[in-house]
Amino acid sequence: MNYKMVSYLLGQIFKLEAALLLLPFAVSLIYGENLILAFAIPFLILVAVSIPLTIKKPTDKRFYAKEGFVVVAFSWILLSLIGALPFYISGEVPSFIDCFFETASGFSTTGATVINNVEALSKGLLFWRSFTHWIGGMGVLVFVLAIFPQQETQSIFLMKAESPGPQVGKIVSKLAITARILYGIYIVMTVVEFIMLVCGGMPVFDSILNSFATAGTGGFAIKNGGIADYRLLEGCNYIYCEYVISAFMILFGVNFNIFYLILIGKAKSALKNEEFLVYLGVIIASVAAITINTVNIYSTFEETFRTSLFQVASIISTTGFSTTDYDLLWPQLSKTIIIILMFFGASAGSTGGGIKIARIIILLKTAVAEIRRTASPHAVISVKYEGKPIEKKILQSTSAYLIAYLLMLILSVIAVSIFDNFDLESTFTAVLSCLNNIGPGMKAFGPTCSFASLSAISKIILSFDMITGRLELFPVLILFSRKTYRN
Amino acid sequence: MNYKMVSYLLGQIFKLEAALLLLPFAVSLIYGENLILAFAIPFLILVAVSIPLTIKKPTDKRFYAKEGFVVVAFSWILLSLIGALPFYISGEVPSFIDCFFETASGFSTTGATVINNVEALSKGLLFWRSFTHWIGGMGVLVFVLAIFPQQETQSIFLMKAESPGPQVGKIVSKLAITARILYGIYIVMTVVEFIMLVCGGMPVFDSILNSFATAGTGGFAIKNGGIADYRLLEGCNYIYCEYVISAFMILFGVNFNIFYLILIGKAKSALKNEEFLVYLGVIIASVAAITINTVNIYSTFEETFRTSLFQVASIISTTGFSTTDYDLLWPQLSKTIIIILMFFGASAGSTGGGIKIARIIILLKTAVAEIRRTASPHAVISVKYEGKPIEKKILQSTSAYLIAYLLMLILSVIAVSIFDNFDLESTFTAVLSCLNNIGPGMKAFGPTCSFASLSAISKIILSFDMITGRLELFPVLILFSRKTYRN
Repeated sequence: MNYKMVSYLLGQIFKLEAALLLLPFAVSLIYGENLILAFAIPFLILVAVSIPLTIKKPTDKRFYAKEGFVVVAFSWILLSLIGALPFYISGEVPSFIDCFFETASGFSTTGATVINNVEALSKGLLFWRSFTHWIGGMGVLVFVLAIFPQQETQSIFLMKAESPGPQVGKIVSKLAITARILYGIYIVMTVVEFIMLVCGGMPVFDSILNSFATAGTGGFAIKNGGIADYRLLEGCNYIYCEYVISAFMILFGVNFNIFYLILIGKAKSALKNEEFLVYLGVIIASVAAITINTVNIYSTFEETFRTSLFQVASIISTTGFSTTDYDLLWPQLSKTIIIILMFFGASAGSTGGGIKIARIIILLKTAVAEIRRTASPHAVISVKYEGKPIEKKILQSTSAYLIAYLLMLILSVIAVSIFDNFDLESTFTAVLSCLNNIGPGMKAFGPTCSFASLSAISKIILSFDMITGRLELFPVLILFSRKTYRN
Repeated sequence: MNYKMVSYLLGQIFKLEAALLLLPFAVSLIYGENLILAFAIPFLILVAVSIPLTIKKPTDKRFYAKEGFVVVAFSWILLSLIGALPFYISGEVPSFIDCFFETASGFSTTGATVINNVEALSKGLLFWRSFTHWIGGMGVLVFVLAIFPQQETQSIFLMKAESPGPQVGKIVSKLAITARILYGIYIVMTVVEFIMLVCGGMPVFDSILNSFATAGTGGFAIKNGGIADYRLLEGCNYIYCEYVISAFMILFGVNFNIFYLILIGKAKSALKNEEFLVYLGVIIASVAAITINTVNIYSTFEETFRTSLFQVASIISTTGFSTTDYDLLWPQLSKTIIIILMFFGASAGSTGGGIKIARIIILLKTAVAEIRRTASPHAVISVKYEGKPIEKKILQSTSAYLIAYLLMLILSVIAVSIFDNFDLESTFTAVLSCLNNIGPGMKAFGPTCSFASLSAISKIILSFDMITGRLELFPVLILFSRKTYRN
């Protein structure tokens, strides 16, 4: 392990977080809130720590997969710990564990909350809370690579460790440029959503924060009743806003490479992308099934369709917004579809969480190939994805991912069951929701409930699940291997 | 596909079922019941069909994996269809779908029932019902191989297709002898349990049937209150019987190779078996956790321990007997452990169902190896099982098994949700219980409930799951591939 290189990079990440804290601080000043200490203390801590760490560029440049994973895992844990300080110092969220849960939920783009009355938070903190979604969505390391370009070899390992999906491709040959393109698309799409929401009559502050939450596929609500509260807001075209947010949730769940291909005029090959087509297919099929299944619940067909579309978009993109209490109102079939979508998650290379459509496709093809191989042991059967045979390595690591994922799920359900005696569906969906970075679960953790009632230990377990899920398990799991710390 | 060979083997299996029907028929005669038609009609059908199929040994002896799977899959489906006739013709179970469900549940050693009042069944049918567990436990094809030895190449494919576990080993070099040894151990153990139960004061008829249900790890109860009903039976030492059944459930969940090794004096190497040790470890840990977790529920510590032991043994061996309503009485943690044990199942090469401990071990080791490989991409990391590196093929097919298994689970849950609007935990555990050949689920399908309330279509889906689960998916799944039917 090249500790010098690891701590140098961590220092750069701390600098970045210090800079990012200035934005919510400015917001709090605009609103005349007294949050100076709440933002100044973490800012000074970050600056004070980052200076000695980054003062000298390490001469030993060795940097491999292991170092990449360790930097990513540590930086996400530390960012959440320090990012929790504004909530804690302000006194608005009294328990530090709650502050940590909320920040981990923010950065990991989960959107699960322990704050029952979010409207009571000051504007500066509300902004910071939603802003963490936006930062976590595209990734902290990708941000660092965009601002402070590193050596190409370092960059690829950092990018691999942080980016979602079974395979990480560069858009262009240089990773620093790739990172800038990704953030460029991300910023433009966020701004477009913001403008469209403002045009729909949503207040500017709310439009910014809801755009952050959509872009990062996070889902923190800034109203106690969630997005549904805008129904009652005078001057706001609620139906229009619901469609706009649905559309952007779906868009932010798409692999960003697709947008790049469209930008450079290769729309045709972008629209042939296998994962993209399956992603759209799953959305269309789910919306159709739920619309038919819930047709008697809402007053018009349009409302049924719009409500189905919004929840499906929200769950598959792992955003976690909701405009209806599906846990209470929907028949079991629709709820079962929602839970299956929770597992799926969005596309690789998007800001969404979950297992990812790419992995689901690869896993299913692996199983079909194996069944065929069983019937004809001597036939040569290869598994193709996006038109090309998949490398054995990818097949192997995708299967291992599934196993590690299920193991994390089961162990977390047991651990939470030890400390909190909720029914199985509540505990299971709470863990599933955190691990897949969605936000709401079912029953006790349904779309209208918060995670406040959990014990402190369960909150720590779930915070761990959120970060582990966002980083796709391996970077966090290798921290538990002794070999990682050897030279 | 060598259709001639397939139909020849099916004919031999029909002969076997015809012969097996004579036993419950004899029982019905002893009890003076008028079930002549109920047994004679299926008997005559089987004989009439088997004669033309087996009159001439096929000259084309080509027989590969594909043929093995197809014979096994078809024979289990057909045996269940014909085995349902005694229930139907007797009129004691009026719906044919219910009869089919009950028989599929019997042969697959699931033990899920649609008969609310089992005590109302005539003795002959009760005997047939429990006897199907015993036949299904060790396998129909293994039985055929023991009685009518086939060519070695055919036998290995038949054995592979029917026997549970990721790897199939012969005990001795000739498969016919292997099959006889397996059935020999099976018969002796069943007889020993029978004698021990009779010594405990359980009536002879009940002792036979409960031994069948334990040996096959089936779990059909012959009392409406299950095994717990013997608590009230005068002259029956209930506590002793509960321990005896617990012990035999655990034993029948052990790989039979272990018993063979002990028999030939290699006890030491038998007890070093990795799967066996993990199986015991999981049982001890689960019993300990549940005993601590339920200590306030029962009147004495001994009762708490005995009740935990019985349910853990019953679920991990996939028998499905119960002596307490754990769904109602136990805290969520204990129920969660039970559900996890449902997934695990028993050992490879035992009569139990589920994913199997061997597969769980291989899957976990695969994931750990992959995490290590991620941290050190250039290190050579091999996965060892039972002291030897596992072949890539086995790793691959075990991962594919997990995927196919999860897919079957999810699709079945959706399918049942379409036709029956039960809550998720009920539907999910019902499917899990059928696919893993356990018997009871939770909530609406808890240990004191039956599957009678389901719609006809859901019963067919679950019957399919039971047979598919018993045959470990692939033999049934390849029936859906067009390639299977080509020459």
